[in-house]
Amino acid sequence: MALASKPIRVEDLATHLGREGAGDRDFLISGVAALENAGAGDLSFVRSPNLIDAASRSHAGALIVPEGVDPGGRPAILSPHPALDFARAVARIVPGWRPAPGVHPEAVVDPGAEVDASASISAGCVVGPGCSVAARTVLHPRVVLYPGVVIGSDCEIHAGTVLREGTEVGERVVLQPGVVVGGDGFGYIRDEDGRSEKVPHVGRVVIEDDVEVGANTTIDRAALFETRIRRGAKIDNLVQIAHNCDIGEHAVVAAQTGLSGSTVIGKAAMVMGQVGSAGHLRVGDGAFVGTRTGLHRDVPAGSRVWGSPQMEERLWHRSSAALRRLPEVLRRVRALERKLGLRRGSDSEDDG
Amino acid sequence: MALASKPIRVEDLATHLGREGAGDRDFLISGVAALENAGAGDLSFVRSPNLIDAASRSHAGALIVPEGVDPGGRPAILSPHPALDFARAVARIVPGWRPAPGVHPEAVVDPGAEVDASASISAGCVVGPGCSVAARTVLHPRVVLYPGVVIGSDCEIHAGTVLREGTEVGERVVLQPGVVVGGDGFGYIRDEDGRSEKVPHVGRVVIEDDVEVGANTTIDRAALFETRIRRGAKIDNLVQIAHNCDIGEHAVVAAQTGLSGSTVIGKAAMVMGQVGSAGHLRVGDGAFVGTRTGLHRDVPAGSRVWGSPQMEERLWHRSSAALRRLPEVLRRVRALERKLGLRRGSDSEDDG
Amino acid sequence: MALASKPIRVEDLATHLGREGAGDRDFLISGVAALENAGAGDLSFVRSPNLIDAASRSHAGALIVPEGVDPGGRPAILSPHPALDFARAVARIVPGWRPAPGVHPEAVVDPGAEVDASASISAGCVVGPGCSVAARTVLHPRVVLYPGVVIGSDCEIHAGTVLREGTEVGERVVLQPGVVVGGDGFGYIRDEDGRSEKVPHVGRVVIEDDVEVGANTTIDRAALFETRIRRGAKIDNLVQIAHNCDIGEHAVVAAQTGLSGSTVIGKAAMVMGQVGSAGHLRVGDGAFVGTRTGLHRDVPAGSRVWGSPQMEERLWHRSSAALRRLPEVLRRVRALERKLGLRRGSDSEDDG
Repeated sequence: MALASKPIRVEDLATHLGREGAGDRDFLISGVAALENAGAGDLSFVRSPNLIDAASRSHAGALIVPEGVDPGGRPAILSPHPALDFARAVARIVPGWRPAPGVHPEAVVDPGAEVDASASISAGCVVGPGCSVAARTVLHPRVVLYPGVVIGSDCEIHAGTVLREGTEVGERVVLQPGVVVGGDGFGYIRDEDGRSEKVPHVGRVVIEDDVEVGANTTIDRAALFETRIRRGAKIDNLVQIAHNCDIGEHAVVAAQTGLSGSTVIGKAAMVMGQVGSAGHLRVGDGAFVGTRTGLHRDVPAGSRVWGSPQMEERLWHRSSAALRRLPEVLRRVRALERKLGLRRGSDSEDDG
Repeated sequence: MALASKPIRVEDLATHLGREGAGDRDFLISGVAALENAGAGDLSFVRSPNLIDAASRSHAGALIVPEGVDPGGRPAILSPHPALDFARAVARIVPGWRPAPGVHPEAVVDPGAEVDASASISAGCVVGPGCSVAARTVLHPRVVLYPGVVIGSDCEIHAGTVLREGTEVGERVVLQPGVVVGGDGFGYIRDEDGRSEKVPHVGRVVIEDDVEVGANTTIDRAALFETRIRRGAKIDNLVQIAHNCDIGEHAVVAAQTGLSGSTVIGKAAMVMGQVGSAGHLRVGDGAFVGTRTGLHRDVPAGSRVWGSPQMEERLWHRSSAALRRLPEVLRRVRALERKLGLRRGSDSEDDG
Repeated sequence: MALASKPIRVEDLATHLGREGAGDRDFLISGVAALENAGAGDLSFVRSPNLIDAASRSHAGALIVPEGVDPGGRPAILSPHPALDFARAVARIVPGWRPAPGVHPEAVVDPGAEVDASASISAGCVVGPGCSVAARTVLHPRVVLYPGVVIGSDCEIHAGTVLREGTEVGERVVLQPGVVVGGDGFGYIRDEDGRSEKVPHVGRVVIEDDVEVGANTTIDRAALFETRIRRGAKIDNLVQIAHNCDIGEHAVVAAQTGLSGSTVIGKAAMVMGQVGSAGHLRVGDGAFVGTRTGLHRDVPAGSRVWGSPQMEERLWHRSSAALRRLPEVLRRVRALERKLGLRRGSDSEDDG
C-alpha cells in the first residue's frame, strides 16, 4: 500500500461504522488489503458468504464479514453491506494525502480573487481575477483558474487541471489531474466564401455538488448559456463532453465516451465506456447504454441499448451472436439456391 | 452568460455587420442568448423563417432575422445569413478575455528566446532557448515551449499546452488547453534479440495559419521530416494524430478520432468523431468519413463512407438496417431448409 | 529536420554500428532523412533490396543498404538489418535535446525529497516530500510529483506530466507530455440510499524499467495493491488503463485503447488502437488484438482476434466481408421464399 495509514482498533472501527465487532476487539488494524494480498496487520473483507473459503485461506488480521458468517475466531466486524463498510473503513484507515491550508509562496493569486483561509493553493497554481475558492478546498500544484471561476467548499482539484473563464463548481467536487473545463466548443459556420468561421463560445460550464471527473477529460463551454454536470454525476477518464451537454443527477459516464453537442443524459443513467453519441440526443432517466454503443437516436427512460447502430439489448445479443454465423448463413443460402436450381453447383463465390 | 459584454446599439451593430437595421435602431443590446433563454437586453437570432413562431414567444430585446421575415416591431437586423451574422455579433458583443501584453514576472523566458512586445506570456509559462513568439500572440498560464518553437502572430495558446522542440506554428492559430504537440511518435523496431527498440523521432510538427486544435489533443512529431496540419484545418478535443500525418487545408477532424502514422487527409475533408484510421491511408479532398468509421483503405475524393469496416454510405445504411434483422434472417433460412427437407423440424439452434 | 545534428564520418558510424563501410569512408554525414527527402549531406537507408531503384533516385549523400546490395558507388554502410541500424544511426547523429543537470531556480523541490546531482529538474516542476529522483533522470518543465514518488535513473519525464502519490517508476522510462499516473480509479458503490459512494483508491501504480507511455495517457492507481506496467511495455497516446490492470513485459498498447479494471495483458502481447476491454479479462502472452476490437472474453495466448464482438481473426475477416453482402442475402432469401411459395411475389420490405 502506497499511502500512510492511521491504525485503529477493531472496536473503534466497528463503532465508526455503526456495526457489531466480534473476536478480539482490541486487535489493532494497521492497513487494508484484498483477501489474497492481506498481511497480519491488515483488514480485509468477505463480499459474500460463498467467499468464506477464500477468507479462511487469507492472512488478513481482521475481516469485515456478512452478517451470519462465522469469522472463524478472527477479529471481525459483522456487516449487512461488507463492500460498502470496507470502503468506509479504507477511507478511515488510509485517509489520503492533503496539503496544508494556505497559499503556497510559488502560487500566483490575483489580488482580485478571494481564497478562503482554510483552502490550499499549491505551488504553481494560477488564480485569476474575480475567482473565488471556498473553505477547505484543495488546489493541487499547477491548477489554472482563468478569470471568474467560482469553486465551492471541500473540493479537490488535482494537478494540472484547467478551468477556463466563468466556470462554476459546487461543493465536494473532485477533478482528477489534467481535466480541461470550459474549452471552446467545436463549432464553425461556413462564411460567404465557404470558409469555416468560428462560432464564438461565450457560455460557460456549471459543475454541481458531489460530481467527480476523471483524468484528462474535457468538458467544453456552451456556445450560449451553459454546459451542466448535475449533482452527483461521475465521469471517468478521457471523456469528451461537448458544448451545451446536460449530464443528469447521479449519472455515470465511463472512460473514453464522447457526447456530441447538446446531448442530454438523464438522472442516474449509465453510459458505459467508448460510447459515441450524435448531437442533440436524449438518454432517458435510468437508461443503460452498453460499452461501445453508437447512439444515433434517443434512448427511452429505463431502457437498455447496445451496439453500433444501437439496438435494444436483447436484439443486440442475438444480432451479435448471428454476426459470427454470417459466413455460415451465406453457405446455407447458396445450398438452398442450388437445391432449387437457382444457381449451379459449380458456382463459386469469394466469401469462402 | 459568463463573460463581460460590451453593449452596442442596433444601428451600430447593423453597420458593423454591413446589414440593414429595422425598428428602434437606438435600442442598446447588452448580451446575447438563444431564443428560449434570452432576456430583455439580449440579442438573439432566427435561423430560418419557419422559426418565426418561436421567435415571437422569445423575450429577446432584439433579433437578427432572415431577410423577408417581419420582426414584429422588435428592433432587428435583417440578414441573408442570420447564423453567420449572429456569430459575428457575438464576437463583437462578448469579445472574450485576454491578458495584458508583456511577460509575467512568474514566467520563465530563456534569454535566447524572442518575444514580441505586444505578445502576452502569462504566469508559469516556460519559453525555451531559440523560441520566438510574434505580435499579439497570447500564451495563457503554464504553456511550455521546448527549445526552437516558433509561433506566429495573433495566436492564442491556452493553459497547460505543451509544444515540443522545433514545432512551428503559423498565424491566428488557437490551441485549447492541454494540447500536446510534438510528442514522440509511437515507433519501435525489433532488435536482434526480438526486443522493441525505439525509433528516434527527429522530425517536427508544422501547424499552418488559422488552424484550431481542441483540448487534450495529441499531435506527434514525425520520425523524419514532418507532421503537418494545413491552413484552416479544425481539430476537436482528444484527437490522436500520429507521426507524419498530413491534414489538409480546411479539413475538419471531430473528437476522439485517431489517425495512424502517415495518414493523409485531403482538402476540406470531414472526418467525424471516434473514427480510426489504419496507417498510410489517404482520405481524398472533400470526402466525408462518418462517425465511428474504421478506415482500412483509401477514401476517394468527394465520396462518403461509414461503418467498420468502411462502406460506401448507401451500402452502410442498408447493411446497418439488415444487421438488426439478422436473427430473423437465420429463422427464415431455417424455415426454408425445413421446407426443402435439408433439416428436420425438430432441429434446434442456439440463435434463438 | 528540426533538431541540431552531430556530424559523423561514414567510417566512424560504421564502427559505431559494428558494420562494414563501403565507398568514400571519409564522407561526412550531417543529417538524416527518408530517401525521397534526403539532401546531399544526409544519410538515408534502403529497407530491402527491392527499393534499390528508389535509392538510386535519392539525393542522399550516404546510405545504409542491405548486405549484398550494391550502393552504386555512394558512401554506404552494409547491414543485415538496415532499418534497425538506421534507427541507431539517427540516435547518434541527432541526439535530441536535454536540459543541463541541476535543479532550476523556478522549480519547487520539497526539502524532504532526494534528487541526484546529475538529474535535471526543470522550471515549474513541483517535487513533493518523500520523492526521490535518481541519476541522470530529466524532469522537463512543469512535471508534478505528489509525495512519495520514486523515479529510477535515466528516465525522461516530459512537460506537464503528473505522477500522483506513491507512484514508483523504474529505469530508462520515458513518459511523454501530459501523462497522468495514479489518478483515482473509477469505482463507486451504492450506499443504503442508492447513492454512489466513492471507493477510496489507496493502491499505487508501478512502472517498471524501459517502459514508454504516450502523451495524455492515463493510468489509474489501484483500489488496493497496485496497477503494474511491466518491463519494456510500450503504451501509445490517449490510452486509458484502469485500476489494477497488469500490462505484461514488452507488451504494446496502441493509441486510444481503453482497458477496464483488472485487465491483464500478457507478455509481448499486441493490443492495437481504439480497442476496448471489459474488466477482469486476460489477454494471453503473445496474443494479438486487432484495431477497434471490443473484448468481452479472455484471449488465448498466441491467438489473434478482431471485431466487436471479438472473433478469431479468420472468422472476423469472413464475417466482415459477409456484412457488406447482408442486403444481398436478404434479397436472396426473399427470392427463395417466393420460389417455395412462402411469400407472395408482391411482398415488399423496407430493406430495399
